[in-house]
Amino acid sequence: MADYNKLALEIHEEKKGKIAVVSKVEVKNKDDLSTAYTPGVAEPCREIHKNKDDVYRYTSKGNLVAVVSDGSAVLGLGDIGASASIPVMEGKAVLFKAFGDVDAFPICLDTQDVDEIVRTVKLMEPVFGGVNLEDIAAPRCFEIESKLKEILDIPVFHDDQHGTAIVVAAGVINALKLVDKKIEDIEAVVNGAGSAGIAITKLLLNMGIKNVVMSDINGAITLDSPDINWAQKEMAKITNKNNEKGKLGDIMVGKDLFIGVSAPNIVTKEMVSSMNEKSIIFAMANPVPEIMPDLAKEAGAYIMGTGRSDFPNQVNNVLAFPGVFRGALDVKASDINEEMKIAAAYAVANTVKEEELSTDHILPKAFDKTVADNVAEAVKKAARESGVARI
Amino acid sequence: MADYNKLALEIHEEKKGKIAVVSKVEVKNKDDLSTAYTPGVAEPCREIHKNKDDVYRYTSKGNLVAVVSDGSAVLGLGDIGASASIPVMEGKAVLFKAFGDVDAFPICLDTQDVDEIVRTVKLMEPVFGGVNLEDIAAPRCFEIESKLKEILDIPVFHDDQHGTAIVVAAGVINALKLVDKKIEDIEAVVNGAGSAGIAITKLLLNMGIKNVVMSDINGAITLDSPDINWAQKEMAKITNKNNEKGKLGDIMVGKDLFIGVSAPNIVTKEMVSSMNEKSIIFAMANPVPEIMPDLAKEAGAYIMGTGRSDFPNQVNNVLAFPGVFRGALDVKASDINEEMKIAAAYAVANTVKEEELSTDHILPKAFDKTVADNVAEAVKKAARESGVARI
Repeated sequence: MADYNKLALEIHEEKKGKIAVVSKVEVKNKDDLSTAYTPGVAEPCREIHKNKDDVYRYTSKGNLVAVVSDGSAVLGLGDIGASASIPVMEGKAVLFKAFGDVDAFPICLDTQDVDEIVRTVKLMEPVFGGVNLEDIAAPRCFEIESKLKEILDIPVFHDDQHGTAIVVAAGVINALKLVDKKIEDIEAVVNGAGSAGIAITKLLLNMGIKNVVMSDINGAITLDSPDINWAQKEMAKITNKNNEKGKLGDIMVGKDLFIGVSAPNIVTKEMVSSMNEKSIIFAMANPVPEIMPDLAKEAGAYIMGTGRSDFPNQVNNVLAFPGVFRGALDVKASDINEEMKIAAAYAVANTVKEEELSTDHILPKAFDKTVADNVAEAVKKAARESGVARI
Repeated sequence: MADYNKLALEIHEEKKGKIAVVSKVEVKNKDDLSTAYTPGVAEPCREIHKNKDDVYRYTSKGNLVAVVSDGSAVLGLGDIGASASIPVMEGKAVLFKAFGDVDAFPICLDTQDVDEIVRTVKLMEPVFGGVNLEDIAAPRCFEIESKLKEILDIPVFHDDQHGTAIVVAAGVINALKLVDKKIEDIEAVVNGAGSAGIAITKLLLNMGIKNVVMSDINGAITLDSPDINWAQKEMAKITNKNNEKGKLGDIMVGKDLFIGVSAPNIVTKEMVSSMNEKSIIFAMANPVPEIMPDLAKEAGAYIMGTGRSDFPNQVNNVLAFPGVFRGALDVKASDINEEMKIAAAYAVANTVKEEELSTDHILPKAFDKTVADNVAEAVKKAARESGVARI
C-alpha cells in the first residue's frame, strides 16, 4: 500500500487535483462568442424561462451529477471534514467520467447539519441532473437521503449504501447459482449496521431473502437491543424474524450467507465452520477483511468475496454507480428506486457469462467496461417500468 | 441578431449545454484506480486533514471558480430565475476557460434571499478558489458581495460591477490620452445607478476623477433624491459634489465624459453638443445604446464606445474577468481589492500600443489573447503589493 500512497500524493500534487471543467463549444472568433455568450445565449435562456423542462435540452444539467459530501465518514479515515474529503470526491468524479461518461462535480459542504445540507443541495438543484451522496456518516446519511428524495425532482443515490448493496447483491445472485440454492431459501447474517449494512439488508429482503439477522459489535440486533439508533431500530422490525440473540458466533450457526461491513479479523474459522454447507462469505472490511480468504476457505467457505482487488470476487462500487446514473440520466428518471437497484444487481451479475462463472469469478472485473452499459440498460428499463422515467 | 439566436439555440441543443467535467488523470488499469481512488487517495486526504492549506496542493481548488447567480438580473432579460440563467453561467465558464484557463462551474441558486445565498456559498467554499457573482439584481448584489468578502477566505468578484468598471476605466484611461486631459481634471455623468453604474463610479473616483454626477430615470441623484435605495444613497454622499439637480440633459452640460449603463436612445444630439469639447461617451445599453455612434459623432463626440461588437471600442467584460481571476488564483489572493482592479484597468489600457491608439481603437479587441496575460500579471503584482497575495 505504501507505494500507492506515495504515488497518489505525487500525482495529486503534479496534476493539482484530478478534475477540470472544459468547454463543449469553441470560442475562436466573434461568431462563436455571439452564440456561446451574448447576444445569442439569451435565446436558450428565454426558452427555458418559457418551459422549465427545456433546461435539459439546452444546458449540461442532463449529464451533471453532484457528488455531495460533508466529509464525516471518508473512506476509513472518519470525520476529516469537507476540505480533506475533496480528493475522494474528485476521484469519484473521475470514475463517473471514465466508466459512465457522466460529468460529476464535487460539492464538499462545510457543515454537518442535516437540514442545512438538505437545503443547500435543494438550492443547487437547477444545475444538476442527479445527486450522489458520498461518505456521510450514519444515521445522518439516511435522513439526508430520505429528505432529498422527498424534495428533489432529480434522482438521489447514496453510493456507500446502495452502490455497495447492488454489488453485494450481484455477488449473492451469482454465488447462489453455484451453490444451487434459491434466495428465498437462504438465511443470512449481516454484520455491521451502518449505512452499507442496512442498505445491503434492505436490498436482499426486497430481492426475496427469507431471513437476515443484523449484528453489530454487541451481537445480534433485536427490537430489545439497547443503544441502537433509529435506523437500526427500523431494521430490527423487519429482520431477525426468529428473534435470535447472542454474539456473532452464536448467530452465524447454520446460516448460508455472511456479509461483513464491519472490522478486521472478527470472524474465526470456527464461526465459518458452523455455517450451513456451501456457505457464502463477503468480508468487506478494508483493507483487512473480517476473515482472510485462505482461512475462510480452510474452514469450509464455498465462495468468498472481499473489498480488495488482490483477491478474487472484489466487491467494488465502480461496478454499479456509473451505470446506475448513466441509466437514470438517460431516461431523466426522477428517482433511483428499489426496482432500479435490483435491476442493476441482476445486470452486474449477468455480465459474468455462465461459462465464466466460478467460485473465484462471481463478479465482473472492475475494469470490464461492458458492466456500466449493461447496468445502464437494465436501470433504464426498470425506471420506465416502475414509472419514474420521464422519457 | 436573429441569426445568432437561431444558431445559439441549435448549438446549445446539439451539444446539450456547453460544459463538461473531465479527468486530469487516466484510469486505465488497477494501478491508476489505486492512485486516483482507493487506497492511494487516502494519502492526500490525510495530508489536507493535517494541514488545511494543502487543499491547494492536492486538489483542483486553486483553479476552480464558482460562477454564482440567483437568476434575478440575467442579461437584459431580468428576473428569469436560476434554471433559465444556466446558459449564461455556462457561457461564462466557457469564457473563463478560453481566455484565462480557469476552471469555472455554474452555481445557479434557487433562492433570492441574501442570507441564504451567502450561507450556501460559504458552505461550498472548500471546493472553490474564487467566487464570481453574476447577474444578481442591485442592490441585493452589493450586500451579497460585501457579506461574502467578509466571511470567505477566497476572492469574490461581482463581474457585472467590477468587470464592467475595469473595462470602462481602461477605455477612459486611453481616451484621456487622446483628448489630452488628465483624469483629475475631468467631470463625468454616469447614467444608470444599478450595479454597473455604481461600480464604475467608485472605480473612477478611486482613480482620481474630480467629480461624477450619477443619474437615473428621475435625473441627477442627490442626497435629497426620493426613492433611491441604500446603495444609491451611499453614492450620493461621495458624488455630485456641486449638488447638481435636474434631468440628464441639464447635468450633461459642460461635462467631459458620459457613461451610460441605462436605456436605449435616451441621449440626444443636443445633450452631446452641450458637453465640454473633445467629449468622451460610453453608451453601453444593449443591444441599443443610449445614443447611436453616428449621431453622437455628428453632435461632436470625440470618442465613442458601446457594448456592441459591431461598433468600434467595445466594452466587453471578457477583457477583464479572465485575467483578473487568473492573477488572483495564481497568487492565492484572499481578495480582489481596489488596487487590483485599478491595476487591471491600466493593464487593459496599456495592451493597446501607443502607435495603435486612435479614437476608434481605445480598447483591445475581445479576441486579443494577450490581454488576459497582461491583466493577470498586473493583478498579481497589485495583490502582492497590497498584501492580499498568499504566495
